[in-house]
Amino acid sequence: MSYNQTIALDAMGGDFGPDVIVPGAAQALEKIEGTKFIFFGDEKKIAPVLAKHSKLKAVSSIVHTEKKISSSDGISAAIRASKDSSMRLAIEAVKDGRAHSVVSAGNTGALMALSKMILKTLPGIERPAIASLIPNANGSSVVLDLGANLECDAQVLVQFALLGAVYARVVRNIQTPTVGLLNVGTEEMKGHEEVREAAQILSSVKFHGKYHGFVEGNDITKGTVDVVVTDGFSGNIALKTAEGVGKLTGQFLKDAFKSSPLAMLGYFLASGAMKKLKSKLDPAKYNGGMFLGLDGVAVKSHGSSNIDGTENAILVAADLVHNGFNKRVAAEMTEVMAQATITKAESAPAA
Amino acid sequence: MSYNQTIALDAMGGDFGPDVIVPGAAQALEKIEGTKFIFFGDEKKIAPVLAKHSKLKAVSSIVHTEKKISSSDGISAAIRASKDSSMRLAIEAVKDGRAHSVVSAGNTGALMALSKMILKTLPGIERPAIASLIPNANGSSVVLDLGANLECDAQVLVQFALLGAVYARVVRNIQTPTVGLLNVGTEEMKGHEEVREAAQILSSVKFHGKYHGFVEGNDITKGTVDVVVTDGFSGNIALKTAEGVGKLTGQFLKDAFKSSPLAMLGYFLASGAMKKLKSKLDPAKYNGGMFLGLDGVAVKSHGSSNIDGTENAILVAADLVHNGFNKRVAAEMTEVMAQATITKAESAPAA
Repeated sequence: MSYNQTIALDAMGGDFGPDVIVPGAAQALEKIEGTKFIFFGDEKKIAPVLAKHSKLKAVSSIVHTEKKISSSDGISAAIRASKDSSMRLAIEAVKDGRAHSVVSAGNTGALMALSKMILKTLPGIERPAIASLIPNANGSSVVLDLGANLECDAQVLVQFALLGAVYARVVRNIQTPTVGLLNVGTEEMKGHEEVREAAQILSSVKFHGKYHGFVEGNDITKGTVDVVVTDGFSGNIALKTAEGVGKLTGQFLKDAFKSSPLAMLGYFLASGAMKKLKSKLDPAKYNGGMFLGLDGVAVKSHGSSNIDGTENAILVAADLVHNGFNKRVAAEMTEVMAQATITKAESAPAA
Repeated sequence: MSYNQTIALDAMGGDFGPDVIVPGAAQALEKIEGTKFIFFGDEKKIAPVLAKHSKLKAVSSIVHTEKKISSSDGISAAIRASKDSSMRLAIEAVKDGRAHSVVSAGNTGALMALSKMILKTLPGIERPAIASLIPNANGSSVVLDLGANLECDAQVLVQFALLGAVYARVVRNIQTPTVGLLNVGTEEMKGHEEVREAAQILSSVKFHGKYHGFVEGNDITKGTVDVVVTDGFSGNIALKTAEGVGKLTGQFLKDAFKSSPLAMLGYFLASGAMKKLKSKLDPAKYNGGMFLGLDGVAVKSHGSSNIDGTENAILVAADLVHNGFNKRVAAEMTEVMAQATITKAESAPAA
């Protein structure tokens, strides 16, 4: 199928810049024919890499700028210095309609702040969330928020739930996605006020999905629900804890296989299966933090992403646009908001 | 070394009751000679199992009661119905000085609520925390709170930090334990107000340990610090997410080894190393949620614990008593409180 869309790429973001971002785009293009790319950044660095990928070059343009946002800058410093930076220009291209989405591996805080500032949120959405797929026993589930909003009230959690449900349905083709609120237990009285109030709203509101109830940390990998909703503090900690455990287990496994000649021989024989296992859990496959809820598509690629990871982040952005995610959110938010008070403007939560 | 102490065991808690708790105690006794046990619960069920363990029987007594707290009860219902229950009687034995510690695999919420009500907290500690060891690249670190306090202000987080540091030093023999506050980033300006204020206090207070700074989810398994401090909501989610990822990886690994005859042969050859790996990550080895900060030692064993897990929870309790953990906390809290306002009674945080 042809992807008739344009993707704005911050070519200078991340640890490797154009050396990874250009080949990543070339790989992605194989899967999303018809897509055009605009690379924002230092032309002297982008053009030589692009020259090696003639098919990509034919559908790409470069917007030159020497300015870039450092990944070590604090958010406010980054925003102050953002004028004409590769990241900001890429976001502005989405705002102006020259591109349908922006992908950057740069400073996460700056990307979120600038995207919010420039693109604004969709109607009915107070705050955008960072969402990503996390592997589970049945495939993967979408988890949000992974760090954009450290504290979330019930309304914001409900908006995240709806964003996640639309994503699961529209992009992942799950007819009636199940949604769970991350909590410290599954009983109704568990958790703090915000999560309990969000549960009440989700139980009473009709949306194109099914509210499952509370889920716990281990439900993420169990695949209990299609969409796991939480505040950005807990979500970020869950995500990074999961990454850490994965890494540690991998290290322990490597050590075990190296612990004796017999174990090494065993590894040699099982290496095909081990490679498949490794590829199943390859972080590159899950790269691409979606900033859901913005009036425009923005995707954050991990700063240390390799070419495969960059490809994946670009595909994530392309799929959001291709499936009309934002239009669907706008339509469904109107539907749901007609039923209930899910934005603060309409109701002050009983604190 | 001889453990001259008495442990009160809630024999009716958990999925298996005396069938697991009595043999668990028998196994533990091998490592903590000199310990005495009091079993609280249904004598008809305890005595026959105890009869099979003559060495344990010789140092044990039974306090009969037919009442027990159900693990499915809500906390307030459980407390109302707690009189003469095996759990409550076991806690009261600690309060009365008939036992030095209590171990239960029963209802966590009820165990925490009753322990708090009956044992009270140590001077300078406002709220007890659930702490446990989590395996990391260097061995393990102690993480708290794992679910007792969903929302924690800065003072409470600081108290948890001190509890963790004393535990690491006194029980784990780490001369100068490092302490980290779990957050969504390591930069100073990251996180919500409570965690940033706690960081300020910990940076300025002198204690028998070293404040490292903020740590992230992946630092838990990296072993960046000896003590990881967080609120009970994030801590519970981190712990259960970690358990979930461990389980999923194990399942994927099993599937990989079963995926081809060659892989199966590989597994067969590497099975010794795999068994060692499995034992390294065996949940039984990490069983025993310590309720730190109480004026008395209480340890929660996992409801589904097997005999090894029960043994471990008992050893955890025995070590806290044996190393004089509570006395040390009381002494150090006095020292630290002389320097700074780390309890709410002394200062209202600038909200």
